[in-house]
Amino acid sequence: MRVLGIDPGSQSTGFGIIDHDETRYKVRAFGTIKPSRRLPFHLKLNEIARGVEEIIVAHSPDEVAIESPFYAQNIKTAIALGQVRGAVLVAVASTGRPLAEYSALEIKKAVTGYGRAEKQQVNTMVKALLNVEEEVETDASDALAAAICHLNTRMFQKSVEESAAGGKR
Amino acid sequence: MRVLGIDPGSQSTGFGIIDHDETRYKVRAFGTIKPSRRLPFHLKLNEIARGVEEIIVAHSPDEVAIESPFYAQNIKTAIALGQVRGAVLVAVASTGRPLAEYSALEIKKAVTGYGRAEKQQVNTMVKALLNVEEEVETDASDALAAAICHLNTRMFQKSVEESAAGGKR
Repeated sequence: MRVLGIDPGSQSTGFGIIDHDETRYKVRAFGTIKPSRRLPFHLKLNEIARGVEEIIVAHSPDEVAIESPFYAQNIKTAIALGQVRGAVLVAVASTGRPLAEYSALEIKKAVTGYGRAEKQQVNTMVKALLNVEEEVETDASDALAAAICHLNTRMFQKSVEESAAGGKR
Repeated sequence: MRVLGIDPGSQSTGFGIIDHDETRYKVRAFGTIKPSRRLPFHLKLNEIARGVEEIIVAHSPDEVAIESPFYAQNIKTAIALGQVRGAVLVAVASTGRPLAEYSALEIKKAVTGYGRAEKQQVNTMVKALLNVEEEVETDASDALAAAICHLNTRMFQKSVEESAAGGKR
């Protein structure tokens, strides 16, 4: 199973693609989409949406995972974050890929065991879990963390289904 | 000149298209895009984005006008509004049409002379200004108001340019 995790941000939208073959994770790609700073805002959003579509076409993930926004510092940043998220969601929807959403707490807990971990702790744990030695931007590690959270959920669901099927025998 | 005004909303996104031929406004179309209630949120956003693209293709406006969001009741509604707005902006950007943004205050002032007018007052004034006798949903009249605001701005810019050109003679 291949999962694309996305961490939307107006200056930098992180992405990370992970394969899971029953026993282990394998990172396929990660990085950030950074729209040109001089563009008007709606054209930045379009660059982000096109970037997400291109990643989905290039890597063909089975499913997509993204953080649910429940928090922002103020109304202005909430609207800005919402707009980038809207652009990303439209891009995902246009490719027809199933989308799963997780709270920041669930995602942080999945990779660090602690729901209030800092971005840098998430970064360190994601790199350790995925055996990545090179530098990973924190927006990309947040995206990889969303993908890990979704894969864990899927693996758990699968093991529950299998034990239920086993119990019926 | 033909202008499309858009008023983004997750349950109902208003739109209105107005032609201006130097002397008067002529309404070409108006209405609302209402995504299916049962759809997951990201598919609703996609329906809104596709709807906006279809309207632009069908009516070929020269420019698009939209309200700038500066206000929301709370963080949750700000994020929700932002997401719909992001979907709309991506749709506009993908068609390459120029986009103009106005504050709610500017738009209300353009049609009622009063920046704090209620939606119903905007509705009444928009219908009177455009000679529309049929029922107009308030989301559609807000969209038409944004288009009027943009046309007024453009006409004013044009008259300033013309008088400047006249002064040089």
